[in-house]
Amino acid sequence: MAGTADDPREEKEERTTLVETVDEEELYGPSEELLENVSSALAAGDVALVESLIEPLHPADVADLIEHLEPEQLQLFLDITRHALEPETISHLDETLREEVVEQMAPAELARVVTELDSDDAVDLLEDLDDETQRQVLENLPAEERGFIEQGLTYPEDSAGRLMQRELVAVPASWDVGQTIDHLRGSADLPDDFYDLFVVDAAGKPVGSVPLSRVLRSKRGTGLNRIMDEELRLVPADTDQEAVAYLFRQYALMSAPVVDAAGRLIGVITVDDVVRVIDEEAEEDLLNIVGVGDTDFHAPVHVTAFQRVRWLVVTLVNTLIAAFVISRFEDTIGHYPALAVLMPITAAMGGNAGVQVITVTVRALATRDITPNSNVGRIVMKELAVGFMNALVFAAILGTLGGFWFGNLALGFVLGAAMIFNMVWAGFAGTTIPIVMEKLGFDPATGAGPFLTTTTDCLGFFAFLGLATLFLT
Amino acid sequence: MAGTADDPREEKEERTTLVETVDEEELYGPSEELLENVSSALAAGDVALVESLIEPLHPADVADLIEHLEPEQLQLFLDITRHALEPETISHLDETLREEVVEQMAPAELARVVTELDSDDAVDLLEDLDDETQRQVLENLPAEERGFIEQGLTYPEDSAGRLMQRELVAVPASWDVGQTIDHLRGSADLPDDFYDLFVVDAAGKPVGSVPLSRVLRSKRGTGLNRIMDEELRLVPADTDQEAVAYLFRQYALMSAPVVDAAGRLIGVITVDDVVRVIDEEAEEDLLNIVGVGDTDFHAPVHVTAFQRVRWLVVTLVNTLIAAFVISRFEDTIGHYPALAVLMPITAAMGGNAGVQVITVTVRALATRDITPNSNVGRIVMKELAVGFMNALVFAAILGTLGGFWFGNLALGFVLGAAMIFNMVWAGFAGTTIPIVMEKLGFDPATGAGPFLTTTTDCLGFFAFLGLATLFLT
Repeated sequence: MAGTADDPREEKEERTTLVETVDEEELYGPSEELLENVSSALAAGDVALVESLIEPLHPADVADLIEHLEPEQLQLFLDITRHALEPETISHLDETLREEVVEQMAPAELARVVTELDSDDAVDLLEDLDDETQRQVLENLPAEERGFIEQGLTYPEDSAGRLMQRELVAVPASWDVGQTIDHLRGSADLPDDFYDLFVVDAAGKPVGSVPLSRVLRSKRGTGLNRIMDEELRLVPADTDQEAVAYLFRQYALMSAPVVDAAGRLIGVITVDDVVRVIDEEAEEDLLNIVGVGDTDFHAPVHVTAFQRVRWLVVTLVNTLIAAFVISRFEDTIGHYPALAVLMPITAAMGGNAGVQVITVTVRALATRDITPNSNVGRIVMKELAVGFMNALVFAAILGTLGGFWFGNLALGFVLGAAMIFNMVWAGFAGTTIPIVMEKLGFDPATGAGPFLTTTTDCLGFFAFLGLATLFLT
Repeated sequence: MAGTADDPREEKEERTTLVETVDEEELYGPSEELLENVSSALAAGDVALVESLIEPLHPADVADLIEHLEPEQLQLFLDITRHALEPETISHLDETLREEVVEQMAPAELARVVTELDSDDAVDLLEDLDDETQRQVLENLPAEERGFIEQGLTYPEDSAGRLMQRELVAVPASWDVGQTIDHLRGSADLPDDFYDLFVVDAAGKPVGSVPLSRVLRSKRGTGLNRIMDEELRLVPADTDQEAVAYLFRQYALMSAPVVDAAGRLIGVITVDDVVRVIDEEAEEDLLNIVGVGDTDFHAPVHVTAFQRVRWLVVTLVNTLIAAFVISRFEDTIGHYPALAVLMPITAAMGGNAGVQVITVTVRALATRDITPNSNVGRIVMKELAVGFMNALVFAAILGTLGGFWFGNLALGFVLGAAMIFNMVWAGFAGTTIPIVMEKLGFDPATGAGPFLTTTTDCLGFFAFLGLATLFLT
């Protein structure tokens, strides 16, 4: 026992080193070096080394590691580690890879994985399975869990019912802090970690919530009804996840109670699930604006190619309309090929300015800085003014340049006038298109970019070539 | 006392109604109706009504309300409510408006506001002030808080040191659960709400964390060192907020300890602050890709116009280069004006496909689905394949259409060939441009869209007009 006195100091020194070596690269999940080590261990067929390399990792990091493996190594990795993979690792995988892994597992094995997951992750995993496999997995589950999950699957995708987990702590309002602590210490069947207690009435309806820090700071005799927050923000189970994300962000919530149609507490949504949703929603806006739509980074080539086709078709129609507009002026261009040289300028400046406006507007709608019924007029006026100011500046520059280039000031004037027209239009269309789409109940981000550039292309060509025909021929 | 038996039932009925009327519109902050009521109360000069309307609102909702007021009503609203505005309301305001409100307040009044805020929000508020006002406000603060804030201001913007709050609960490893609970019950000077306790050694270095739910579930005699998590993810104070966001998302953290250069615990970052960062980072990517840059929805017209100029200048240079490319083929176009009609098609299809690819790549870099050293080859090959597949399909369609339109199949062939070339280029440039920028230490999102379309425009025009000159004249 002579060594014990030294142990704590040794431990401390170790920790000091740990802190000093933490740099940003290490904050970010699995390192490049680890990836290479796993790769070469796989190539060498060294099963024990692979296992010892991934053993200390967080499930989220193992999932990242799997996502970075080359396809041919992936299968080898799964063959080696399948039985050792933690359930959380599987639920952290991106959709395409998760399906690949899950397809290789027997229903009984899948049932074991599902049992160990929180109910929200379990529903996520099961919803992707074909009906037959889903049925077989469900049959292998304990009755209570099976009921939870079957009910979870009945809620619409992207709803609060899918986000929530059933594991929660609900206590009667008549209890005091002491009873609550004794209950928590005595129960084995509690969620792993939780942040709020929910207080329910006899009918199972939530009447308040108590942050754990408040339970810990109050004396044992304090009644829960004296320390609970009564201003609950109840989330009906069919609420869209976008609304849930708004709620958490707006009020900085850690968790929110989910209620059924009768107002009974049936689950809880925690902030970590919402973080994922917020990320998804912002990314969705981005991808929709440029017309990529729902995308999965790990999808195979033909799937990705097909996902992109939709908005390329829109672009195709767009360019055909633009080509048609230009073809009306074929004679003018034949006489005056300088028009073909300058023609893309008007379209490009309008398109670029318009995509800027539409992006800002879509985000302002998403964050509810704009609501379709309130301050629309002010927003549109502002963007018209911004468009006009920049149009004047760029029209002056490009008009002058264009005029001198071809030694024809009238040509420069036509170019400048067409640009002013198109950039002001961009300010108008960039604000009104998404606001009108939101008002009509569509997602304002969907294809906003390609849709807007159709208008700025056609109007840009039309204004420039039309004015040129009027004033130059 | 005859009524008491009925009271609980009455209360229940009230709650049932509450639950039934919650719809998605109500989940979303202040309603249109409330806005109109406040507006008309302001117009009527009814101070008492304005106050009673905002009194029950959450500070975040009051901030939203202020952001939706017309400029002329805003001043009136502030005159009425300035002294009644909660500090949290001010810190929830968007930057431009917050500056406007803060400018109207006396230093002593500001000091009162700052004292009531958590230290991270207080630093946020103070960093925008001019040096003189900042100094005056700091002088009006209690010494300890002043020290915290002065130190907070020394950390770089967007770093962990700015995100963290100083208010935290740290306890020695030698304590047991009972001592901890007694300490929490006895201390007045604790954060409002907290989710984890931090265990520190004698030097003030963190050695573990304990989720509150674990404290509540353990018996009084349990030593903290037996229930604490020793796998701490320590965040150095100068860590970039993007890395912090990654950490929280990856490991579903509720809070993380921030340490100084010596490894001592100096603050804690909680998930609600990170939610804001995640939102900001995703939005930043979006705005950067379309070339809007840092934007503020409430900025005045001339500021917004100026913010947009930078990428419009890039577009200007882009279109001038494209115009120059076209001008090399002026003679060909003069002989064959159909080329001017079809010419925008190649550029537009390549540009659109390229922006899709670049957006997906930028997001994959942000979420670390791609790291510049690992799987780059695979990603580039995939996008080349996707580009080639879609190029074949669209080249066939548009080549045929173009050929028949102008009764010249060679023209259709030239159009198709140029499109294939440009869309494959889009797949290559859309992946490599952001990856190379990331590798060189730049933000891969910045101006990625305008930069890419410069290349697809020029190459699209060049390929189409060049092939046409070779094969058609």
